[in-house]
Amino acid sequence: MREAVQAYFDLFNAGDGAAIAALYAEDAQVIDPVGTEPKLGMAAISEFYAVATQGGTKLERTGPTCIADKSAAFSFKVHVAGIKPEDTAIDVALPTGPMIIDVIDVFDFNDDGKITQMRAYWGPSNISQ
Amino acid sequence: MREAVQAYFDLFNAGDGAAIAALYAEDAQVIDPVGTEPKLGMAAISEFYAVATQGGTKLERTGPTCIADKSAAFSFKVHVAGIKPEDTAIDVALPTGPMIIDVIDVFDFNDDGKITQMRAYWGPSNISQ
Repeated sequence: MREAVQAYFDLFNAGDGAAIAALYAEDAQVIDPVGTEPKLGMAAISEFYAVATQGGTKLERTGPTCIADKSAAFSFKVHVAGIKPEDTAIDVALPTGPMIIDVIDVFDFNDDGKITQMRAYWGPSNISQ
Repeated sequence: MREAVQAYFDLFNAGDGAAIAALYAEDAQVIDPVGTEPKLGMAAISEFYAVATQGGTKLERTGPTCIADKSAAFSFKVHVAGIKPEDTAIDVALPTGPMIIDVIDVFDFNDDGKITQMRAYWGPSNISQ
């Protein structure tokens, strides 16, 4: 789980959305942010990361991976270079221009080490410009 | 939610377990760490925090409160002064002596601003001595 989390950052910052999607189980869910409609299954998740890794967005780790049972939680900052709102993979309104978003993600894993659900905790109050 | 999270830290570090329990709804659940049996309801939660705030354990925030929908996630370090294992409120084996534990908590809230579920993400790999 610890290796999968580090791979998530490395692959995201390399812009490799397809390799990130491969960290997930076929029937996984991505809920980003929590409260929005889940992305269900590999096709939706692949599309999500293909869009999310466009435009120079980078992730910066800000703490260790906290592992409990079959879950891993970790904090990070999203450095958004300046995506257009219509290009975002996220189903919430974002300001235009560069921004930094403080996020905590939780991954649940199956016995094969694949992510079955991702929940991203962040909202408008976590965006700084 | 942001104020409730800050109150949680302030009250914990003041050793006021009863006031922490009052942040919870009557039928709330505490799952600490994730994967162990939930503490269900106010009596169990009050007992949990009465024990947890004994022995000089202190919480140190290490990042912002990430708020999504009706949930708040946040990272911190638990500074354990040197509790005896039999005095712990946690249903997992801990080493003896002083230790620091990296934790991420997630709180779910109801419409009254009370915590309905707490999930604590940490495990043996997050303990340093």
